[in-house]
Amino acid sequence: MILWALRLEYDGAPFVGWQRQATGLSVQEVLETAAAALNDGIPPASIVAGRTDAGVHAFGQVAQLALPARHDARAVRDALNFHMKPHPVVVLHAAPAPPGWNARFSAIRRSYRYVILNRAARPALQAGRVWHIPQPLDAEAMAAAARHLLGRHDFTSFRAAACQAASPLRTLDRLSVRRGGEAIVIVAEARSFLHHQVRNMVGTLRLVGDGSWPIGRVAEALAARDRAAAGPTAPAEGLFLTRVAYPEPG
Amino acid sequence: MILWALRLEYDGAPFVGWQRQATGLSVQEVLETAAAALNDGIPPASIVAGRTDAGVHAFGQVAQLALPARHDARAVRDALNFHMKPHPVVVLHAAPAPPGWNARFSAIRRSYRYVILNRAARPALQAGRVWHIPQPLDAEAMAAAARHLLGRHDFTSFRAAACQAASPLRTLDRLSVRRGGEAIVIVAEARSFLHHQVRNMVGTLRLVGDGSWPIGRVAEALAARDRAAAGPTAPAEGLFLTRVAYPEPG
Repeated sequence: MILWALRLEYDGAPFVGWQRQATGLSVQEVLETAAAALNDGIPPASIVAGRTDAGVHAFGQVAQLALPARHDARAVRDALNFHMKPHPVVVLHAAPAPPGWNARFSAIRRSYRYVILNRAARPALQAGRVWHIPQPLDAEAMAAAARHLLGRHDFTSFRAAACQAASPLRTLDRLSVRRGGEAIVIVAEARSFLHHQVRNMVGTLRLVGDGSWPIGRVAEALAARDRAAAGPTAPAEGLFLTRVAYPEPG
Repeated sequence: MILWALRLEYDGAPFVGWQRQATGLSVQEVLETAAAALNDGIPPASIVAGRTDAGVHAFGQVAQLALPARHDARAVRDALNFHMKPHPVVVLHAAPAPPGWNARFSAIRRSYRYVILNRAARPALQAGRVWHIPQPLDAEAMAAAARHLLGRHDFTSFRAAACQAASPLRTLDRLSVRRGGEAIVIVAEARSFLHHQVRNMVGTLRLVGDGSWPIGRVAEALAARDRAAAGPTAPAEGLFLTRVAYPEPG
């Protein structure tokens, strides 16, 4: 068998999220079902870098699964893409994994992008790919507030009740907010995130952007270590997992 | 009555094109039906800058229609956007038209963008918004070939049989080809285009990009004044009407 590292792109809209669930189709099920065609009909178990929620998109997700040694990288990519049709999930790149590598535990950085469409008109071409907020937002105030969250903190205030992580401590390496025309793009980077952490941070920054909160209140929300002290969860459809980084081999 | 100039964004996928047709829903019908709510129940007749084909998208289309003088610009925009739900068509901006202005005949430049996704994997997030070509294309060769089409020419070789224009003469002001990662973006600008001209030029440049044609054959195809001498029509889904320019008032 060969362990494959796969880089994936998907549209999160039609799925219940990455992880298999009884309630509907998951990206994991689409991938593993397609991989069965290369594995004597048996769906191999996959491991993923970021277990994205329902509706969250990805163009840099990384997953691993083992397949019989008779397939080369191009055949793995093309066969998986063929068998995943017509679902909006594709393998961008397939490569044999280095010894000891694990898609989830070897990852040293995860990068997310969140896109707000900040204009009066609802989205037409970008429907399902942005959070539409019609009232004008102050992106510079949001950026200033975001800097209060950088570094190593107890992120309990930004953690979903269902979060299964052992510790609420995380180190946020980047949380940038930039306006480009009608779009406000937020980039978040950390070794790992708590459940809903990015969406809860975005939902909180929005309160600063629309003037409901002064900038400093974000620091108070963080210090409170209480989910009720922070803002609401931003919708899934504006969120993209863009990149997962691993140590350079050797 | 006030004549309104409207800037529109739409996803072309679900429509038979801009123009009303018996065969299905058009963008024009969606707009005019919504406008009836502001016009005592009567759909006003609209005029458009670019009659986009079925499947062609826009984020800078311009249309005009007249409405009773009791509505201001914001109310026109917001009411049309409300009544066009759930269709993927929105008014980005509404403004009273200058005296004598016509959305179609006053236009001095139309800009289109065509996007090719040039990678092995089919599109997931960009499905329906790009032309997927898996074999590697030489964007520099395509750019060099495109320069043969610039200027004033008889574009019969790139004109649909159904084209209703009185003359096949057009002046092509820009036809740029640039690679950005996996995307090849083609920008075409002219005062006006023949029917299918942009898609026929893109379908021809693709033959240069994949090595089927030498660069110089594009000039020969143009000189032939024969549709059969040029390449096939590129699919509608990669094409966007991005901007329509008018003379500065005054």
